[in-house]
Amino acid sequence: MLETIALVQESNPLVHNITNVVVTNFTANGLLALGASPVMAYAPEEVGEMAGIAGALVLNIGTLTSEVIEAMIIAGKAANEKGTPVILDPVGAGATGFRTEMAQKILKEVNVTVLRGNVAEIANVAGENWTIKGVDAGEAEGDVTELAKKAASKFGCTVAITGKVDVIASKNGTNLVKNGDPLLTKVTGTGCLLSSVIGAFTAVENDTLLAVTAAVASYGIAAERAAKIAGDKGPGSFQIAFLDELSKLSPEDETYAKIEKI
Amino acid sequence: MLETIALVQESNPLVHNITNVVVTNFTANGLLALGASPVMAYAPEEVGEMAGIAGALVLNIGTLTSEVIEAMIIAGKAANEKGTPVILDPVGAGATGFRTEMAQKILKEVNVTVLRGNVAEIANVAGENWTIKGVDAGEAEGDVTELAKKAASKFGCTVAITGKVDVIASKNGTNLVKNGDPLLTKVTGTGCLLSSVIGAFTAVENDTLLAVTAAVASYGIAAERAAKIAGDKGPGSFQIAFLDELSKLSPEDETYAKIEKI
Amino acid sequence: MLETIALVQESNPLVHNITNVVVTNFTANGLLALGASPVMAYAPEEVGEMAGIAGALVLNIGTLTSEVIEAMIIAGKAANEKGTPVILDPVGAGATGFRTEMAQKILKEVNVTVLRGNVAEIANVAGENWTIKGVDAGEAEGDVTELAKKAASKFGCTVAITGKVDVIASKNGTNLVKNGDPLLTKVTGTGCLLSSVIGAFTAVENDTLLAVTAAVASYGIAAERAAKIAGDKGPGSFQIAFLDELSKLSPEDETYAKIEKI
Repeated sequence: MLETIALVQESNPLVHNITNVVVTNFTANGLLALGASPVMAYAPEEVGEMAGIAGALVLNIGTLTSEVIEAMIIAGKAANEKGTPVILDPVGAGATGFRTEMAQKILKEVNVTVLRGNVAEIANVAGENWTIKGVDAGEAEGDVTELAKKAASKFGCTVAITGKVDVIASKNGTNLVKNGDPLLTKVTGTGCLLSSVIGAFTAVENDTLLAVTAAVASYGIAAERAAKIAGDKGPGSFQIAFLDELSKLSPEDETYAKIEKI
Repeated sequence: MLETIALVQESNPLVHNITNVVVTNFTANGLLALGASPVMAYAPEEVGEMAGIAGALVLNIGTLTSEVIEAMIIAGKAANEKGTPVILDPVGAGATGFRTEMAQKILKEVNVTVLRGNVAEIANVAGENWTIKGVDAGEAEGDVTELAKKAASKFGCTVAITGKVDVIASKNGTNLVKNGDPLLTKVTGTGCLLSSVIGAFTAVENDTLLAVTAAVASYGIAAERAAKIAGDKGPGSFQIAFLDELSKLSPEDETYAKIEKI
Repeated sequence: MLETIALVQESNPLVHNITNVVVTNFTANGLLALGASPVMAYAPEEVGEMAGIAGALVLNIGTLTSEVIEAMIIAGKAANEKGTPVILDPVGAGATGFRTEMAQKILKEVNVTVLRGNVAEIANVAGENWTIKGVDAGEAEGDVTELAKKAASKFGCTVAITGKVDVIASKNGTNLVKNGDPLLTKVTGTGCLLSSVIGAFTAVENDTLLAVTAAVASYGIAAERAAKIAGDKGPGSFQIAFLDELSKLSPEDETYAKIEKI
């Protein structure tokens, strides 16, 4: 499954990101490390043209404004016309009504290929009341899987809910990925970058469930290695080691992937 | 005094930053390292709601525009209604008339809890003619203390003027902090991040003078350790070590704090 | 030639950057490491005043919007009035029509001192059809040199085309620089930061050809050292080592400069 990594490294897909101002640099560096070609473009005058030449379009509402949402919709429609995959990361959906509405607006006007977020974000976008139901990981896992399936069905797209265990649900099946490291939660934008990495993988692999699963597993493997390198130094060192390890992924890492089809 | 660190680490206060585009990533990573939860939100449609759920609001005019200033005022008023502390960092006040005016406009329309800047910024915001009065550190220190007290009285808030020696003045007293390292001046956004760290501390401690003093001292202690780790490698290595050290602060660092009540 | 480094370190020129949201932090940290003083300001209300007090103005269209282009032109005209050098980095010119047009608009309305980009960007801005003409490095080098000369003549400015070999062309001569390391292409914003470093050098040295050549060579030398330090760790480690090495440049590095006058 991780042969997709080699496809990214060989074809250097152009990933067009309309993302938040917090993670632009980390996103670009992560995509470069991976072997993809990042571009950021926000102006309504050019987003359609840029999305049209990209291999994937990533929409991230982390620091949304009305103007940027309009640009996202123009870009999304241009991507749809070309059959280019569109990834939506509804950062902070639920934190404010505006975020939830804008994420839903994008899903209504653009044919989204992959929706990726944490459990609260996906629940809010899908209009599900999500409350943490206790500490039993197994139970919560089941809930998250059900939510992912429901959202995938509702929006007609692949849904990735990432957390301690990552769930990827699509009409073609559901996968769990158990790679990763808690230090990912101590660096800003690791979820955002993952959405862009998913963009790079979907740009080179038409089987979206496979592409997203491979992206999520590869990302987790790089994090595991970075955590070993950083040791107890801290999150600054982990961030740098993580960028380093993203540049060293290979299809042979398949052996470290913890993927379960369910 | 540094027990406030443990409160931050335990309660992970949400710090809403409306800040400049240069330091967003560093600010978010610094707050995460510290144990706080950063959020950035700029859209007028949501800043009020976001500020209303945050533990502190940080306004930083480093790359201000008229639109962002309007958003800051909406957010500031929402924070005021809830009694949420508001930190203002008047980056570059005095460099252009627009910055000085906008900083003063915020101070007029929003009830600011803490004003933090370097000596030139605070002097410009307070309408004081500040000129460096010679190289006698002792003398300059006295001047800075007077300026901090004047500004605190004028704006009815706590004022932190940071530099070689940091001065924190409020109606409840004035503290000097002598922690820190000159390498802080070789990394962009270390002042901006400090304002956000002050936000995190005021979110968990009602005694503002104590909270700001603890924040400034902790920050300086982390810088001192990072400088030791980076050695003569340079500012890139220092920046990473500094993020690492922010994640390791503890109330037991009290012993390294160089705080003087005056 | 590299004595310009010492001038930057001694006079800490203020470099006003109107740049893209991806590279703001890296640009500011790179300029600080070098010994310059970065400032970012975008608001039309202040860009003229800020450009007027700066030693150089750097315009970078990486994430352009119509509003930012207007601000760039205001700032550019203010810099022109004061005789302050203006650097233009036409990021992504050719990728969309909007970028090409906006870069050309700036060149028409502002007296640009240095135009820096990769070969495709410069060709597009100059209206030349550029196609990679085979793998013979020598041949391509000749083509790039001709393009640089043509653009320098067309726009009446110094043109730096950077790549494996860097070409700097002006009416006073043409230089090649062969310093650098391929890892520069794995970190986002290394071209953008170079444009800002060129700004710092032109702020302290009136001979523009010399200033740009010294900037490009110094930058390449720092990259070579950073690559040695990072070894096979990866692009994350290289980025940090590069910032470290920018802080250690000195006129004595002349001996490592690979500059050819042609």
